[in-house]
Amino acid sequence: MENLSEFIYEYERIDDLQLNGLRIIQNPKGFCFGIDAVLLSNFVKIKPKEVAVEFGTGTGIVPILLAGKTKFQKIHAFEVQAEVAHMATRSVKLNELEEKIEIIHDNLINVFDHIAPSSVDVVFTNPPYMSGNGGIKNDDVLKTISRHEIMCSLEDIIKNASKLLKFRGRFYMIHRPNRMVDILTLCRQYKLEPKEIRLIQPYSDKKPNIFLVMCSKGGQSDLKFMDPLIVYNKDGSYTNEIYEIYQNEKITVFSEDSKTL
Amino acid sequence: MENLSEFIYEYERIDDLQLNGLRIIQNPKGFCFGIDAVLLSNFVKIKPKEVAVEFGTGTGIVPILLAGKTKFQKIHAFEVQAEVAHMATRSVKLNELEEKIEIIHDNLINVFDHIAPSSVDVVFTNPPYMSGNGGIKNDDVLKTISRHEIMCSLEDIIKNASKLLKFRGRFYMIHRPNRMVDILTLCRQYKLEPKEIRLIQPYSDKKPNIFLVMCSKGGQSDLKFMDPLIVYNKDGSYTNEIYEIYQNEKITVFSEDSKTL
Repeated sequence: MENLSEFIYEYERIDDLQLNGLRIIQNPKGFCFGIDAVLLSNFVKIKPKEVAVEFGTGTGIVPILLAGKTKFQKIHAFEVQAEVAHMATRSVKLNELEEKIEIIHDNLINVFDHIAPSSVDVVFTNPPYMSGNGGIKNDDVLKTISRHEIMCSLEDIIKNASKLLKFRGRFYMIHRPNRMVDILTLCRQYKLEPKEIRLIQPYSDKKPNIFLVMCSKGGQSDLKFMDPLIVYNKDGSYTNEIYEIYQNEKITVFSEDSKTL
Repeated sequence: MENLSEFIYEYERIDDLQLNGLRIIQNPKGFCFGIDAVLLSNFVKIKPKEVAVEFGTGTGIVPILLAGKTKFQKIHAFEVQAEVAHMATRSVKLNELEEKIEIIHDNLINVFDHIAPSSVDVVFTNPPYMSGNGGIKNDDVLKTISRHEIMCSLEDIIKNASKLLKFRGRFYMIHRPNRMVDILTLCRQYKLEPKEIRLIQPYSDKKPNIFLVMCSKGGQSDLKFMDPLIVYNKDGSYTNEIYEIYQNEKITVFSEDSKTL
């Protein structure tokens, strides 16, 4: 039997992602990935020779899922929390993905200490959903930093994503609809033109509670809405599309620790 | 029998709106109202003592429907096309609504020749959907002006709506989702904060093709999405909500002349 004790602390656990043998280390007391990460990894398009940067990788789940689904040259994934960055680094090592994924323990506001401007094909992020001074803050500091704009603002994210990207590079984000005006306004301000929006609705007749947006650096104004992604059928079962997205992953990733559902 | 010949030209027709005996004069060769007008009239909220302005009234359909559903002090409805404004004026007279609805034959860019700034509670509009230099222009000049930003731009509309409104006055617009970034950006720029968006989808699993937005002058950033409005059931019949909206109106207003459907 494989000895995994070198990879994890006793309060952590290793989950099998049911995708090409990939596994992820999570801290049940800290922050486990949720549907947002899976939806984002399904939405991001990255090509074999492309380099990407992620802002706020958490457990490292999105780059690890992408490594299981698609080819790319490299993903540099930033994580500001030392403990979480260390855990993500161990997940990358556990999956032997060190050549594809680099976890960088730093705040994304310092991204240009690590990566040159205008050098990146893709930036993606599942950022904190709450503004720094709003919402109910969690007692747990790890969860609070993951959920609130404490270490960086939405404007920091969009400004730095734009500066990092090559002309016509793509920016992918998942966020809540109540911030859509802020997001679309900031994206246009920083020359990241919103090109595609996909709304995620719990039920087909209910308002969206999450949305995905893709922007093109220097693109022309031409927003396309995609068909909505419906999570549940009327009887409470998952829709076929959700099963397809999760086809190789455990449906149990809809955990209570998810940021949204 | 009532003699209606004083109201209409031979190429026009009078349609019964099945709502409190209201009728509308339309020109089948020009431009007839469609689902957009009905959806907008259902979305606009106006109180008994409030004064509203409409930009681009066309046949006068939205103020006339509002007069059948709700109480208000006055609606001043602008229409730039002389022939169309004349027709709308005759519809107002036909319905004996001259005290409630004033049709003003002028371009909305001249609105302050008629109405004082910061004096209005509500502005609503179903503007041309196509930008002035895009889309397929119709040979018919009436339809072209109704559909394209030829006589005014989206920015003219939003800028003048903001200037007309009192603090916390409401702006209601129906438009196409592909212009959403332009609309939300301009609204915020001119201090009309988007507060509610309702997407109209032909089917529950299909992307929206129209949207309604309500903005508050000087409001705080806090966008709420409403449940989507679905037009058709899977079998092609109208949904219950569409029947409710049309409860007192002829379902035949889904005409081929509609701008969108």
